[in-house]
Formats: sequence, structure tokens, C-alpha cells
Amino acid sequence: MNDLYRRISKDDAVVLFVDHQTGLISGLVRDYGVDEFKNNVLALANTAKFFDIPVILTTSFENGPNGPLMQGLTELFPNAPMISRPGQINAWDNEDFVNAIKATGRKQLIIAGVVTDVCVAFPALSAVNEGYEVFAVADASGAFSEQVANGALMRMAHAGVQIMSWFSVASELQRDWRNDQEGFGNLLAGHLAGYENVIGTYMGAQNDVKK
Amino acid sequence: MNDLYRRISKDDAVVLFVDHQTGLISGLVRDYGVDEFKNNVLALANTAKFFDIPVILTTSFENGPNGPLMQGLTELFPNAPMISRPGQINAWDNEDFVNAIKATGRKQLIIAGVVTDVCVAFPALSAVNEGYEVFAVADASGAFSEQVANGALMRMAHAGVQIMSWFSVASELQRDWRNDQEGFGNLLAGHLAGYENVIGTYMGAQNDVKK
Amino acid sequence: MNDLYRRISKDDAVVLFVDHQTGLISGLVRDYGVDEFKNNVLALANTAKFFDIPVILTTSFENGPNGPLMQGLTELFPNAPMISRPGQINAWDNEDFVNAIKATGRKQLIIAGVVTDVCVAFPALSAVNEGYEVFAVADASGAFSEQVANGALMRMAHAGVQIMSWFSVASELQRDWRNDQEGFGNLLAGHLAGYENVIGTYMGAQNDVKK
Amino acid sequence: MNDLYRRISKDDAVVLFVDHQTGLISGLVRDYGVDEFKNNVLALANTAKFFDIPVILTTSFENGPNGPLMQGLTELFPNAPMISRPGQINAWDNEDFVNAIKATGRKQLIIAGVVTDVCVAFPALSAVNEGYEVFAVADASGAFSEQVANGALMRMAHAGVQIMSWFSVASELQRDWRNDQEGFGNLLAGHLAGYENVIGTYMGAQNDVKK
Amino acid sequence: MNDLYRRISKDDAVVLFVDHQTGLISGLVRDYGVDEFKNNVLALANTAKFFDIPVILTTSFENGPNGPLMQGLTELFPNAPMISRPGQINAWDNEDFVNAIKATGRKQLIIAGVVTDVCVAFPALSAVNEGYEVFAVADASGAFSEQVANGALMRMAHAGVQIMSWFSVASELQRDWRNDQEGFGNLLAGHLAGYENVIGTYMGAQNDVKK
Amino acid sequence: MNDLYRRISKDDAVVLFVDHQTGLISGLVRDYGVDEFKNNVLALANTAKFFDIPVILTTSFENGPNGPLMQGLTELFPNAPMISRPGQINAWDNEDFVNAIKATGRKQLIIAGVVTDVCVAFPALSAVNEGYEVFAVADASGAFSEQVANGALMRMAHAGVQIMSWFSVASELQRDWRNDQEGFGNLLAGHLAGYENVIGTYMGAQNDVKK
Amino acid sequence: MNDLYRRISKDDAVVLFVDHQTGLISGLVRDYGVDEFKNNVLALANTAKFFDIPVILTTSFENGPNGPLMQGLTELFPNAPMISRPGQINAWDNEDFVNAIKATGRKQLIIAGVVTDVCVAFPALSAVNEGYEVFAVADASGAFSEQVANGALMRMAHAGVQIMSWFSVASELQRDWRNDQEGFGNLLAGHLAGYENVIGTYMGAQNDVKK
Amino acid sequence: MNDLYRRISKDDAVVLFVDHQTGLISGLVRDYGVDEFKNNVLALANTAKFFDIPVILTTSFENGPNGPLMQGLTELFPNAPMISRPGQINAWDNEDFVNAIKATGRKQLIIAGVVTDVCVAFPALSAVNEGYEVFAVADASGAFSEQVANGALMRMAHAGVQIMSWFSVASELQRDWRNDQEGFGNLLAGHLAGYENVIGTYMGAQNDVKK
Repeated sequence: MNDLYRRISKDDAVVLFVDHQTGLISGLVRDYGVDEFKNNVLALANTAKFFDIPVILTTSFENGPNGPLMQGLTELFPNAPMISRPGQINAWDNEDFVNAIKATGRKQLIIAGVVTDVCVAFPALSAVNEGYEVFAVADASGAFSEQVANGALMRMAHAGVQIMSWFSVASELQRDWRNDQEGFGNLLAGHLAGYENVIGTYMGAQNDVKK
Repeated sequence: MNDLYRRISKDDAVVLFVDHQTGLISGLVRDYGVDEFKNNVLALANTAKFFDIPVILTTSFENGPNGPLMQGLTELFPNAPMISRPGQINAWDNEDFVNAIKATGRKQLIIAGVVTDVCVAFPALSAVNEGYEVFAVADASGAFSEQVANGALMRMAHAGVQIMSWFSVASELQRDWRNDQEGFGNLLAGHLAGYENVIGTYMGAQNDVKK
Repeated sequence: MNDLYRRISKDDAVVLFVDHQTGLISGLVRDYGVDEFKNNVLALANTAKFFDIPVILTTSFENGPNGPLMQGLTELFPNAPMISRPGQINAWDNEDFVNAIKATGRKQLIIAGVVTDVCVAFPALSAVNEGYEVFAVADASGAFSEQVANGALMRMAHAGVQIMSWFSVASELQRDWRNDQEGFGNLLAGHLAGYENVIGTYMGAQNDVKK
Repeated sequence: MNDLYRRISKDDAVVLFVDHQTGLISGLVRDYGVDEFKNNVLALANTAKFFDIPVILTTSFENGPNGPLMQGLTELFPNAPMISRPGQINAWDNEDFVNAIKATGRKQLIIAGVVTDVCVAFPALSAVNEGYEVFAVADASGAFSEQVANGALMRMAHAGVQIMSWFSVASELQRDWRNDQEGFGNLLAGHLAGYENVIGTYMGAQNDVKK
Repeated sequence: MNDLYRRISKDDAVVLFVDHQTGLISGLVRDYGVDEFKNNVLALANTAKFFDIPVILTTSFENGPNGPLMQGLTELFPNAPMISRPGQINAWDNEDFVNAIKATGRKQLIIAGVVTDVCVAFPALSAVNEGYEVFAVADASGAFSEQVANGALMRMAHAGVQIMSWFSVASELQRDWRNDQEGFGNLLAGHLAGYENVIGTYMGAQNDVKK
Repeated sequence: MNDLYRRISKDDAVVLFVDHQTGLISGLVRDYGVDEFKNNVLALANTAKFFDIPVILTTSFENGPNGPLMQGLTELFPNAPMISRPGQINAWDNEDFVNAIKATGRKQLIIAGVVTDVCVAFPALSAVNEGYEVFAVADASGAFSEQVANGALMRMAHAGVQIMSWFSVASELQRDWRNDQEGFGNLLAGHLAGYENVIGTYMGAQNDVKK
Repeated sequence: MNDLYRRISKDDAVVLFVDHQTGLISGLVRDYGVDEFKNNVLALANTAKFFDIPVILTTSFENGPNGPLMQGLTELFPNAPMISRPGQINAWDNEDFVNAIKATGRKQLIIAGVVTDVCVAFPALSAVNEGYEVFAVADASGAFSEQVANGALMRMAHAGVQIMSWFSVASELQRDWRNDQEGFGNLLAGHLAGYENVIGTYMGAQNDVKK
Repeated sequence: MNDLYRRISKDDAVVLFVDHQTGLISGLVRDYGVDEFKNNVLALANTAKFFDIPVILTTSFENGPNGPLMQGLTELFPNAPMISRPGQINAWDNEDFVNAIKATGRKQLIIAGVVTDVCVAFPALSAVNEGYEVFAVADASGAFSEQVANGALMRMAHAGVQIMSWFSVASELQRDWRNDQEGFGNLLAGHLAGYENVIGTYMGAQNDVKK
């Protein structure tokens, strides 16, 4: 049964960043604002880091116009496996990439990528076919238009992929605020500009009382 | 068979308000206008009240920036079970919350919350897994963007959750206007600004004739 | 198998207009422009008339703010069964309505209504449960917002309802232009303002040659 | 003083329809929906007819892809001056067009056209330069995009053109409902689908009382 | 000099509500959401009440489909001059209306109405011509579309009308929070759903400290 | 199992262009911008050409207002089977069309057409019923509105059609950049205006170094 | 008098392309779709070429991330003055640029650029101050958002800049179709995808008659 | 003459941040995305810092729900004059604020604030009346809706305020890249996520060559 609730576990998940390369983002992503998209990708990255979940990076033709990984990602994961694919478009067609996943021994794949209809959908569907539980992080993935992204999400959902946001990934991994309240709060504050203001108001209110 | 028509019954339903807290709404809800969202949440609340359906309130870290429940909800349900979760993000992970549901003896769960992809989706999916009939009230739930909300609805729909609006919940519970025509009319007029104007025109027309 | 292709047949279909009442349209429909929505409803109506398919009209509390059926519909179908429901919200709960359907002996139900999430979704889902083939005409149905309509379509699609537009209904019924080319052309020209201009250009071009 | 209030008078106004040709509308108008645009143009036309204001029609290369005038206009004004311009893009560059205006002896020009930034803006600005009072009917004029239309309105407003809608033209001409209440009511009902429903509810309400 | 800063004064202003009638709002207003529009109009009304500024109400053909004033307005101002215009579309053409304004002895006119391009623009422009300082409250006024409203605002701005929001009217009248901090705070909280949540978070934070 | 990953293969696919006729595009397509839509259709066409995949063209009533195929398509595929359907709306009802498909011996059908809810959905669903693997190219297909297109995609997805974009089709066919890096790069640059700029920057950067 | 109608003349105009560089377009333009923007810029370029109007190209730091001029421009104007500004942001601060304009002896400046609020607005305003007639081509210029572009257009319009589209520039220059009917028709067909389809229908219609 | 080009000078400008408080942003700003708005405000702040332009901060009731200044601002300008207004809504009504401006001896005021129609428009208009050159930074200012913001920009533009974006402020101050190329590049890269990717591609390209 593909469609029911799958809970992501810190101990069984791996995060895959597929082709978040500077040229591809510049040239192909138009379904999210530029500030919003950068924030979403780095939010997912910091989520992985915070929970100490293995991360696998992969690029397509990075020596060419597709460009290197966006800077924030390489800085965050200097030691993560980084698979520069020599040509395969579907990352699953690259043995090194699949082996890197297998090496983690994990069965829950959290995938984000550029673009949603190719770099996310192809490996996501391949992984479902091989029995993995797959979680596509829609808002850390970009496409030409909302229409194209929506079609890709439909396609994946019908094949059993779980459609997620970076925030739902973080929340599922955390499970309980008490596991590290301050750490999780900082993670959220750093990537939720709206929530950061709420915290500011909250702390201001407390200061007011103390006066 | 998860996908077919489930009718909500006054005698088997319970309404769950998950984390409609002031800080979370301020900081995280951007897929509905502020007036529209407030109206939708209170419309669902007044629907529950009108039909005398048990309501369960729950909050996440209310002593902190997430803030207290929005005022209208606490005023409407002073005696409802109110589960202040000490840390669990998925309300279903909190025994008190699940026990409060079990205590009602009801099997139809009507869920709204902030945010859709976490506070609604997680307990909704958990409840489906345990055999409940689950109804997610999309327009009384909020998310970062329409795209994120749409992805969460897709995920839930594929797992067998029924996607509802507050108005379809009210209509299904009422079943027949004759059960209390005036009361139901007032409920709608109070939360459908467009319909309120239609009533005004209607009554004006009748007054014109009587002159 | 609910999900696969169902073809509407002139000999097995009936068109149900559920609650296209003046007050409900004024007060509740905001997902289509006013000109667009009026056109879509009348386009579906004229489609039914053109193919001589039985039509069933029903209203909810028409003696009240919900108002009478929109004028165009009553003019087009003076002899159609018109079920003024005394109170049932789900038209399927009204015996007269269901009996009117049964009296046609037809098993394919084409439903449009106001609002999509109640007046369309409820009877559509009821009918699926009883074994009918159901076709919801999304663009001849209205809701509070695109988000609410989208949620209702998701719910219906997952229960096996076929999501249609008025134009796809007309096209499926026609099957082949040769069945009545001029008649079908007039039907389209009357409700496709964009196509009407194309015909104008075409006829102008032919006149130019003949000069 | 170019910018202050100019009131359109039935006795001093003339309505100019510039290039509402089938090919141009198909190919170039994307800032209004197809149903909405057709309605707006015919609403302005019926406004002119109702008030018996002289109308001047003009086309650009109608024997060619630009096509003939949209059918509704030619039907409404079979006897209006119809200037088929042999080539001038700015209608004001065509003597026959200007002479037709002069022949009316009127000084208030109400202009609509396709496209807003050319066929409306050019003659509107020419007319201002020659001392006419000019009223551009924005919603009966079409352009490639809302951005282009907005730029053209800015340009015209800064040159002293009054920006109008068809409804504000009709309202200014009517001045007082008592001048012909029924006639004006019919004009509005025929082109305001939203208002037509309100009338339906109103009349229904009156019928309810009489029962 | 028409264009420079005019400050609204409690002692020289009068608020004019022009044709906020139930039928007109239902049938004609599509540039704001229904909840948002109702809130904006009542916010302006409560602003006038809070500052004890004279209010003048006027309707067009209220005994007819245009309908009575929306209920909230009549409730708030039972003793305000209420000019039922027998036919004049431009309220300024009605002597009683102009006399009611003159009777206040005030020279700053704050106008809102339905629709923006007629019921606001016409009297606003008339008043400018007679030397009044005119403030059009854009978001408490409604139109067919954002495009039509935008054109009407352009027209008015070029004639020297000051374009306002209800919130900028309230803020200008208040001048200084210290004039009545609690009263003004309540006014805002009642009509700013977003701000109401901020207050909730603030008070929650203070309660947390006190524990 | 209808829902899982189907990979398009160069050796088993055929591309079907259904009714991309000038009149239909002018009159009926409003869910994509005009430049964007033209580009998407030609991008899919050039993809087919690049991979030397058989193409089948079909038109509906091309001698009439529907018009001829858009010029770019006929130029690209002068020798492709071109089925001028005498009347059948669902291309699958035309024996010649189905036979042309059978003649290719291929089982993977890549379909685009105008309009999505008729010319794409009907044959796509028919083909699924007969056991083909069907891929609907959403962004090379057009409809009246995004809402109508979305409903049609839902319908198809639930019947097992794979929802694609032209870019995901091209990427799946290419499989590996190394199969023809330069050729594939040119294909993309020609139809991805955003990516073309990235290439320009890349080459400029290399030139800068070489200086 | 800055605000009134200025007609562009072939004999007095010069077209300035300011900073249409690959990196700037990729990184900064988000108010138009990628296909639409590329088309608009090349349409203005081909307009200049068709009318044999002098063109001046300028870039800002082209040896760097801003990148070279977009390819289409350099191909079209191999012999145009190309001012690589060593640092000045406002092109008017660069003597070579101003001298290139002066060398043309022309007084009407048609400006497009990336981004609207800087590369267009600054030199446009400088030129107005020095007595030039300035025409800003809004849709061949790009900005971060529609809001930013709209603010820049407001600023320029208030300083006397004429707001244009590429199509209004082309139309004003052509003045009369008879000056070169076929050439002008080709210019339009090449850059108006919507109009190209109309031509296709027109020619198809003529062929039909001839059969 | 208010409307013509005013160039901001490093030596004559002062930047005013009016009421960018956490509660006001949470509760009142809905015309920009949360990430976009935070970025725009900090971009303007870093611009001021980079050019060493005096900054004046002011808040309204910061000890209350309006909350403290957003954190980024206080961190950047620990020594800037910070005027906590005890009640005045229009900052210009506060003597300390005006004196702080006068103390700088500067005559060019660059204003951003929350909300645009009050906290920006009021002091901007007051300052114009007193002879200052005023520059309103639209995208570093927030309002309830795009409609309200647009009305406020219209009002200000008609009074002679220059409408700016943060990027046009930065560009005007920089004048020439050579004044500090690296510094200015870093400023832009830090606040233009789109441009940051272009830089990444550029540097990647150079590295490729060097290999």
C-alpha cells in the first residue's frame, strides 16, 4: 500500500539534493520568488544538518553552464558525498549515486531538486519502483511555472511519493520539541522570517513586563 | 476502500482545532487573507457549537512565541478539553489528545489547524492509519503558500482523507434546513458576508412590496 | 474500477442543475468571473438542449434569499422536472430528485451546481456510491474561492467522479462533427467568445477572396 | 487645466470604436477574459445606442488578417459612419475620420479600441492636442497584458485624458435614473451579469410576499 | 495647488458613505474579497464614530434591487442624515446631499462608495471643482475589477483627490496615540485581524512572565 | 498497475500532436501566455525531431475556422502522417489515426493538443483503455483557463496517464547527456530563453579569463 | 509642457538599449515571463532595424557576472555604437554614451533597459532634464517585480517621460501601413505569436475558398 | 518644480526607517512575501551602512504590541539616533525626529516604513511641504495589500515624492562601480539572491577554463 502515512525517521532517512546548481536555478526556476526559493533550499539543508541526517549531493554537468552547487549547500556539507554525474539526467541511473544511498543503509529518501519535473520526479519514481519510501520536498524544488510543478506533483503523488514541504520534514524529524527545544527554535527562526518577527514581539513583551 | 463518500454525522463526529495560536497564525499563514482566515476558523467553530458537536482544542507550546489560542476560539469553547501539548508536534503523539478523542466515542474526525502540512496532515494521517474517518477542513487551515497547502491536500487525499471546506462541513451536518431553519440561517449569515448582503436585498424587497 | 475513461452517451446521460439560484450565485460564487460563469452555465444548458438530453432542475429553498433559478435556465427548460427541495441540502436525500433521475432510466449523471463543495460534491458522491457514472462539470459550478473548488475536485476525483468542463461534455456528446455540423458550430460560437472572433476572421477572409 | 472633472453630456459626446476587429481581438487582447471583454465592448455600444449618441466606427485594414469589426458592433450600428482606413494607424491621421467627428459638431470624444496603447492612445492624445475633451474607456479597450495597458493609461492620464469604464460612461450620460428608469435598468441588466442575479433575487422576494 | 499634503482634521472633516447598498455590493464589487470588503467599510464607519465625525449616508434607489444600506452602517449611524436620492447618480447632483454637507460647515470630504468609478469618482470630482479638499478611501470602495478601480484612482489623483485607505484616515485623525490610547487600540484591534493576533501574542507573553 | 513510473524510450515512443490549429489556439487557449505556448509546442516538436521519434499530426476540420496546423509544426514534419479527421472529435475514433499509431509498432504515446480537456484527454483515456502507456504533455497543451486544465490533468492522472512537461519528455528521452551533448544542449538553448542567458554568461566568463 | 503627446519620428529618434546583458536578465528580471521578455526586447530591436533608426548599445561591466549583451542584440546590430561603460551606472554619466546620442543629431530617445528602475529611469530622467523627448519602452525593460516596475513608471511619467510598449513604438514609427505593408506585416508576425495564428487562419480561409 | 529628476547624493542624504517593528510587520504587511520583505529592508539598511549615510530610526509605541524594531536593524545601527515616539503617528509631528534630521544638515530624505500609506506617506508629504527632496523606497515599505500600497504611491507621486526601490537607491548612491567595485558587488550579492547565482555561474565558468 503506497498511499498511507509514512513517518520520516532520523534513523532511516537520507536527504538528496539533486542539481541545485547556480545556472539551473537562474535559468529554470520561476515558480517561487528568488528570496523564497533560496531560503527554502537552505532551510531543508539546515534541517538535515540539525538532525545529523546523511546528505548526498549530486550535480549534472557542473563544469558547464549548469554551474556549481549553490554556495550555501557546499558550505554546509563539505564532507557529504558529492556525485558529479558525467551525463545521466535521472540521478538514479548513476551507480555512484545509488551506491551512496545504499551505503547509508537507509530506506527513506527525502528528495529536493531543480527542476521538479525532471531532477526530482525521475529519481523519486525510480526509487519508489525499488521499494524505497520517497518524500519529495516541493518547496525546496523549482520548476518553470506553477503549472509544471503542479503536474509533476500529481504524477509523483499517484505513484506513491509523499508530497512534503521543508517545514513538514523538519517537524516530522523533530517529533517532539523537548528533544532539543532551543536548537529547533533556532532552526525555525533562521528560516521563517514571519516567525522571527513573532519571536521579536514575544521577547519585547516580556521585556516590557520586567521593566 | 478509503476514497468513497463519507457523510459526517452529528452523532459520530468530533471537531479538532490544532494549534490555531496567535503567533503561528501571524508568522506562518499566508495562503488566505487575514479577514478571510479569521472568518473561516470562527465559522467552523460556530458550526461545531451550533450542532453541539464535541470539540477538542490543542496547542503546541502555548507559553512561548506560538502564543495562546486565538481569542474567538477560547471564548466559544470554555469547557472543551484543551490539551496543551508539552512538546509533541503531531498531536496524535500526545496520549491526552488521543484519549480525549476516544472519550467521545466518535469515529469521524473533523480537523483544522495551523499549518496545514504539519498540524493538520500529521494527525490526519495518523488517524486514518488507526481506522478513523478523517475530514480535513482546508479553508480553516493555513499554510505558508497556496503551493504548500496544495501539496499537503494532495498528500492527504491520496491517503484517504476527505478534503472539506467549513461550509461543506456545516451543510453535511445540517442535512436538512428544516432541522432548524432559522438557526442554520443565522449561522450562515454570520459567516458568509456575501450571503448576508443577499439576505439584505431579499428583506428590502419584501419591505418594498408591503409598503 | 472507478478511475478509467467513461464516455458520455446521448442515450444514457442526464444533466442535473443543482441550485443555480440567483441569491446563491450572487452571494457565494467567487472562483469565476461573473460573465464567464454565466456563460459557462448557459453553455452547459444549451449543450443539453442541443443534444436533447433530459435535464433535471432542482432548487434549495427558492422562496427565500437563495432566490429563483437564474433566468436563462428556466427559459431554456420550461418543461423539465423542477424539484423544489423543501429542505434537503444534498439533493440525493430528496426522493423526488432521485426518482426523477430513475425515471429517465439513465445511468450517466452530468452534474453542475452552486456551490461545488456542497451542491455538486454531495449528490455526486452519493450517486457514485449507488453505482452511477458521475461527471462533475467544474466550470459550470461555482465556489467561494479557487482553493475551495480545487479541494472539492480532489475529493470527487478520488471517489471516482470524472472531472469535466462544459466544453468537454459538449464534445463528447457530439462525437463527430458530421452528426450536425452547423448545429454544433452554432452551439460553440454562441458560447465561445474567442472562437466567435475566429469565425469572423475566417468569413472575412473568404469574402476578401471573393471580391 | 487638463486634469479636472469633465462631465460627459449626451448633447456633446460622440463615441469612437477604433479597430475592434475580430483578428486584432483574437491575436492581441490578453488583459481581459474573453467573455468579459466581449461584454464590455457591447455594453459601451449599447450605452451609445440607448442615449442616441453618434457613433463612429473605424477599422484598420479590414480586408486582411485584422478582420472585420466584431459582429455585434456592425449589427448595432448599421448606419453609423464606418471609416475603413487605408493605412493610417493613428485614426486621427485619417481625414475622413476627423471629418466625421467634426461633422457631429461635438467636442467630447469617448474612445475605446484595440489595442489600448496604440489605437486608443494615439488618437486620444491627438485629440487632446487639438482641444477636445477626451475620455478613454479602459475596460472596453484591450492590450497584450495588464502591464502594457497600465502604462498606456498612465501616459494618457498625464496628458489630460479622463480614464473611464463603460459603466461610468453610462452613468454619467444617464445623470438621473428618472430620465428613463426602465430603459436604463434594462441596459444595465443586459450587461451586468452580477446585477442581473440581484434583480432576480429581488423579484423573487417580491413574489414570495405576494403569495 | 491641488496635489500637496492635506491633513484630515477631526474638526473639519465629514465622512460620506455613497451607495453601500446590499444589491450593489453583491452585484458589482469584485476587486476585494467579501470578508475584506465588509471589514474595510465597517472599519471606516467605526473610525468616523470613534472620532465623532459627522457622517452622511446616501443611497440610490434603495427601494429596488440596489437594496438597503448594508446592515452594519444603518446600525452604527441611526441618526445620521440619510439622503435617499430619487434618481441622481452623482450624489452631488442632489441638493439635499450637498446641503447636508454644507450644514456641517466642513470642508474636508472623506468619500467611500460603491462603485469606485461612479459613486466615488463623480461626487469626488464635483467637490474638488467646488473647492473642497477631497479624500477618496480606496479600500472602503468597490469596483468590478482591480483594473477599473485603478483607472478610477488615476483619474481622481490627477484631479487633485487624495487617495487614502481606511487605516490612513484613522491614523491621520488620531494624530497621536495619547489622545486616547485604549480607544484607538480597540478600534484597530476590531478591524485588523492580523494585528489582533499580535496583541494576543503580546498579552500571552506578558502572562508567561508573570507566572 | 497504472500509477508507477513509466520511462519513455526512444525506441517505443511516438509523439501525437492533436489539433494544434491556428484558429483553435487563437480562440481557445488562455492558460499560457502566447509566447510561452508557442515555444512549448515547438520545443516538444523539436524534441521529437532531435530524437528521431515518429510523429503523427492530426487536425479537426482544418478547412474551416479551426484553421491549418500552426506553421512551425508543418515545417518541421513535412513527411509525418497527417490525419485530417473528417469529423471525429476524439482522435481515437478515427481509424486512420489509430492505424497510424499501430503502424509505428510503438506502445508509448506522448500526447499534446488543443484543448487539454478534449483533444488531449479523450484520446489519452482511450489509449489507456487499450493498454498503451500514455504521457500527456501538459505545457504543450492549452485550455480555456488554468482551472479547466487542472481538472483535466486530475481526470487523466486518476486514469493512469503520466503528466509530463515538454522538458521532462526531452530529458527522459536523452537519458544521458553523453549520448549527444552538443545536440541536446542546442535543443535546450533554443527553447529555454532563461537557460540561453545562462549560457551567454558562461561563455562570457570564459572569454574574460582568456583575455 | 512635458505631458502632452509626442510623436516619435523616424527622422528624429534613436533607440537606446541599456544593459540587456545575460547576467542581469537572469538575475534580476522577474516581472515578465522569460519567453515574453526575450520576444519583447528582440521585437523592439527588429523595429529599430526595420525603420533604419540609429541604435546605441551600452553595457555595464560586461566583463564580469553582468555578462555580455544578449546574443540576439549583438547579431542584429554588429555596427551600432557599443559603449562598454567602465563603471557609470547611469549611462548618461558616461560621456561616450551621451556623445553617441549627440552624434546622431536626434532629439527623441527611445529607451529600454535592465532594470527599469535604474538603467531605464536614470538616463531617462537625465535626458528629460536636458530637454530631450524621452520614451520609455516598459515591456522591453525588466525589473524585480511588477510592483517595482510600476513605481518606476510612475516616477518617470511624473517627470514627463512617455510610457510606451514596443508595439506602440513600432506603430508610431510606421504611421501608415502603406509605407511598406509587407515589411511591417512581417515585423509584426515575427513577434506577435497571437497575430501569427490569426494570419494562419486567414490564409487558410483563403485557400479554402480557392479550392 | 517637484516632479523632475532628483539625484540622491551621499553627501546630502539621510535614510529614515519608520516603524519597521516586529508586531507591525507581522500584523500589517501583506503586499510582499515574508522573505522578500525582510531582504528588501535589510538591503536598504546595508546600503545606508555601505555608503556611510546617516540613518535615523524611529518607532511607534515599541513597548506594546507594535514591538521592537526588527532585529537586523538594531544590530546594524547600534549608534544611530533612535526616536521612540511617545504617540505621534506621523513621525514628522515628533520634534525629536525632525531635529534629528535637521542635525544632519541634509536635505534629501530617503524614507521606508511600515505601513506605506501611513508611516511612509505622512512624513514624506510633510517633508515635501517643508521643502525637502523626498524619496520613498516602495519595496522596503509594506502595506495591507498591493492595492493600498499602489494608492499610497499615487498619492505621494502626485505630491512630488520620488518613488524608488532599494536597488535604485543603492545604484544612485554608488554612481560609478569604480568607486568601490568589490564593496558594491558584495552589497548586491548579499541581497540579490538571483544575482548571487549568476556570480556563482560566472566563477564556475572561470574555474572551468583554468582547469
